Amino acid sequence: MNDDLVVVREDPFNAETPLHRQVGIVTPNRLFFRRDHFSVPRAPGDLVVDGAVERSIALQVPDDLAALPSRSLVVTLECAGNGRAFLDPKVPGEPWRLGAVSTAEWTGTPLRAVLVRAGVRPSAVEVLCEGSDAGEVPDAGGRISFARSLPLEKALHEDTLLAYAMNGEPLPVEHGGPLRLVVPGWYGMASVKWLRRLAVLERPFEGFYQKDRYVIDGLPLRGIEVRAVIVSPREGARVRRAPLRVRGYAWSGHAPVVRVDVSVDRGETWGGARLLEAASPYAWRAWEVDWEPARGGEAVLLARATDAEGRRQSLEARWSPLGYSNNAAQPVRVTVD
Amino acid sequence: MNDDLVVVREDPFNAETPLHRQVGIVTPNRLFFRRDHFSVPRAPGDLVVDGAVERSIALQVPDDLAALPSRSLVVTLECAGNGRAFLDPKVPGEPWRLGAVSTAEWTGTPLRAVLVRAGVRPSAVEVLCEGSDAGEVPDAGGRISFARSLPLEKALHEDTLLAYAMNGEPLPVEHGGPLRLVVPGWYGMASVKWLRRLAVLERPFEGFYQKDRYVIDGLPLRGIEVRAVIVSPREGARVRRAPLRVRGYAWSGHAPVVRVDVSVDRGETWGGARLLEAASPYAWRAWEVDWEPARGGEAVLLARATDAEGRRQSLEARWSPLGYSNNAAQPVRVTVD
Repeated sequence: MNDDLVVVREDPFNAETPLHRQVGIVTPNRLFFRRDHFSVPRAPGDLVVDGAVERSIALQVPDDLAALPSRSLVVTLECAGNGRAFLDPKVPGEPWRLGAVSTAEWTGTPLRAVLVRAGVRPSAVEVLCEGSDAGEVPDAGGRISFARSLPLEKALHEDTLLAYAMNGEPLPVEHGGPLRLVVPGWYGMASVKWLRRLAVLERPFEGFYQKDRYVIDGLPLRGIEVRAVIVSPREGARVRRAPLRVRGYAWSGHAPVVRVDVSVDRGETWGGARLLEAASPYAWRAWEVDWEPARGGEAVLLARATDAEGRRQSLEARWSPLGYSNNAAQPVRVTVD
Repeated sequence: MNDDLVVVREDPFNAETPLHRQVGIVTPNRLFFRRDHFSVPRAPGDLVVDGAVERSIALQVPDDLAALPSRSLVVTLECAGNGRAFLDPKVPGEPWRLGAVSTAEWTGTPLRAVLVRAGVRPSAVEVLCEGSDAGEVPDAGGRISFARSLPLEKALHEDTLLAYAMNGEPLPVEHGGPLRLVVPGWYGMASVKWLRRLAVLERPFEGFYQKDRYVIDGLPLRGIEVRAVIVSPREGARVRRAPLRVRGYAWSGHAPVVRVDVSVDRGETWGGARLLEAASPYAWRAWEVDWEPARGGEAVLLARATDAEGRRQSLEARWSPLGYSNNAAQPVRVTVD
């Protein structure tokens, strides 16, 4: 089953989506990238909601959730380390190229509905989301589980989901089943898998994955930076000197992508790509542009996206000590025969 | 692989989607219903476009299509015979209950782009769409292939697709791969599979599947009639006398579904269900309503949908000699313990 993915690490399992096989908007479950911090845990028991709430509750998954409102959203998830492999000097962490990004239709209950049922106290500031996945982390000084917090506003947003289905299937255990968070627009670390506990906090969370990892310039990572990827032609491809379709995807966690520019001359000149319709405000958009190579030899293709709030990809890598959010436009070299 | 479907006939293969397993909006490919008229054909060669065109063309599938614009749409397809099993008196044809309906994200090229490339002559009135699937049909007097025509206006609509991908996968051969039509809003017979030829016609097509089958009151079937189905609880279920979620899907090929009413007392009283957001104008909408049975014993649930143009499901079966478009609200009997 994992033969379909590009494995970055076997244990814990980390693997990229083969983006050259991506067609349409949703990524089939078996081709969806995986970023695991620990071994896949056994199915957790109840989901516990406690902390600064009127009443602590324990919900059976999925039965008790079936009584709450449901919602389906097409959402692109991207690992904050996507593009890390291209950084120079090298940084620690999984050496993701560009395939740590995929899109699915997620179905679940708004996290809000569960919090409202428990009754959030006025003193609350964050919601800590803890997974069942755990293990020894030397840098953290011992055994910890994966946990991240959400500011109350994001936790109460109607599009933040407790997801129990993915592309019309019960959520597979490899993708966090039976229950995971899906936080639209934020890097994947926020979409905690194998969810077992929600704790409403009166002070900001300071756990390992909140202040030692998934941090840039001292701040916990949140929104996905704007990015376009070219999925065809592929790096290193040989193409004929004939009309050719260049295609790819573009996304931003902050605002809709409104423009993708493509260069076939290493960034000297740029032309606008045709953007296909958006499946949802949180899904990547497909784009395409036609190109007829004017001469043989090597050509370097680049694509860069711009979102509705004016964010645009840089041509320079964004270097940081842990290699997050490197959304630089990535050159694709092809040989024209 | 077909263990997941509810088989209605083995050869040619006809099988329903197990609707009680449907969650979210898209149906996984292996759970998508299948209505085959003949054995699955081998991969056809080129797609030929001829007839009343400026220039006949032959396109290699999928390579030549990759150079044309692409488009992804979430579309619900329903067989015109869905619900036929409930008709009385019985009629010929596959005895579909309610699972001859499913939804997918389809990606392809607008049929329009191919027709424009061939150049449609002013005398054109229809486009004949012919599949590679063929066989002996005694009622038709011999061997025929599956073929249906579209009026020019529908053929040129930008949402009528030549689809080569389904839910992010290359179109599986069981679903018409490598290339099929997807005609949003129309019963499934229009979405011709294993497409091998498009012939632009100067007179309406009068083939077997256009005038002897898929016809009601002498007219070829087109738009899908409004319908809601209940997917949970299931027919015959035993439920507890406790709060319960009733959920299902609703769709219409003519206009958006704007209302679903649910009765838990055999149609005496009705209450509105909560409609979830639409994934596209052509996709079914999920709906849900909470119910707490007031007493034990048998209860009969009914759901009926209304679309934006005022079409509403009848409680009475729509009988026709070949059993098409029977969109009557279907009772679901449950026992309350």
